[in-house]
Amino acid sequence: MVLLSGGLDSATAAAVARREGFALYCLSFSYGQRHDCEVDAARRVAADLGAIRHLVLAVDLAAFGGSSLTDTTLDVPRNRPLDGPDEIPVTYVPARNLVFISLAASWAEALGARDIFLGVNALDYSGYPDCRPDFIAVLEQAVNLGTKLGVEYPDTPWFRLRAPLIDLTKAEIIRLGTALGVNYSLTRSCYDPRPGGRPCGACDSCRLRAAGFAAAGLPDPLGSDGVWG
Amino acid sequence: MVLLSGGLDSATAAAVARREGFALYCLSFSYGQRHDCEVDAARRVAADLGAIRHLVLAVDLAAFGGSSLTDTTLDVPRNRPLDGPDEIPVTYVPARNLVFISLAASWAEALGARDIFLGVNALDYSGYPDCRPDFIAVLEQAVNLGTKLGVEYPDTPWFRLRAPLIDLTKAEIIRLGTALGVNYSLTRSCYDPRPGGRPCGACDSCRLRAAGFAAAGLPDPLGSDGVWG
Repeated sequence: MVLLSGGLDSATAAAVARREGFALYCLSFSYGQRHDCEVDAARRVAADLGAIRHLVLAVDLAAFGGSSLTDTTLDVPRNRPLDGPDEIPVTYVPARNLVFISLAASWAEALGARDIFLGVNALDYSGYPDCRPDFIAVLEQAVNLGTKLGVEYPDTPWFRLRAPLIDLTKAEIIRLGTALGVNYSLTRSCYDPRPGGRPCGACDSCRLRAAGFAAAGLPDPLGSDGVWG
Repeated sequence: MVLLSGGLDSATAAAVARREGFALYCLSFSYGQRHDCEVDAARRVAADLGAIRHLVLAVDLAAFGGSSLTDTTLDVPRNRPLDGPDEIPVTYVPARNLVFISLAASWAEALGARDIFLGVNALDYSGYPDCRPDFIAVLEQAVNLGTKLGVEYPDTPWFRLRAPLIDLTKAEIIRLGTALGVNYSLTRSCYDPRPGGRPCGACDSCRLRAAGFAAAGLPDPLGSDGVWG
């Protein structure tokens, strides 16, 4: 089971799972995000990786609001200092990874799958609480306590939340994925795309991506600074 | 925040929250359940309790399958021994409470709410792992670790998963709710209702309800044995 957003991190996590020999079941969400074009990117990535199945589930987190990613009356910050004080940006979506991992656990249990791969990583976790290692570890416990398979296998936890990128920088992720044959031209990272899905080049996600490719010494197939062409 | 299923337990938990002075925000799910009429019951209960807002979110757990509540090709057991060996029945929906509580946490965080009331109780927890106290306790930790409000208030956990019925029998729940003015005629419990929403009288949920009213020495306003009068 892989949570696939359409961005480069989760595509790389999926490639790690494939290298380990797993058959891939990929789950994506149409959650009312303003960058819904990432769902099409997730479809392309799943097909390119040879996923057995890719499911796109609709969950309307925009009904709750509270984030500039789901509420278009709020602005996505442009050219925000990325090395500034440790604050949680307005692009944080309340409890998003908790919701997504819970839904992945539900599908995994219905399938009898054990390993749930996540693209969370160190760069994200500097800003988003739901990308922290301690959260992932405690949630793994909760998943095993609150599921049939979890309680039927109490000695070795049935479900494993796998975060193979958690300690990697964006540049290290890009090098790893490149070595594993990830086609990054299929991925999309922008939070606030222009018409046609063209990246804005100024949101945190575009800028982290551009800095990551630069630090890795590799060209972004989407364009030299994360902007198309 | 109250997770309201439309059944009698969550209606009682909502009444407990109201007694404590909370303004009620109620969340229900249309998740592909065969007893979707419970959502209408939840609407009636929310209105009767004077909820500030009642949101019904669509989350298609039937896309995952694995339960007789979401897969109509599987039968709901009829007249199953309720005091038999401790096994998890086929009506278990994979990771359902994990998913529902995660979504409640997402809305609660967007609202700035702290207390999330759940109708889970001892009778359920004999069969369903996601009604156990240890699961609820660890998930509460995870919610606080993986949310903005949780990490901003690290000393006293911001979010509290409240399960006021956890140690009560069905009869005790019914007595409590009756004392708090819950109108149980608005609730629906049946897993496998007949056309028009008429309870089957034979599923676990109908029988636990009937046994609960009998043990409480009170009439079920839906009829003497959980079947419409």
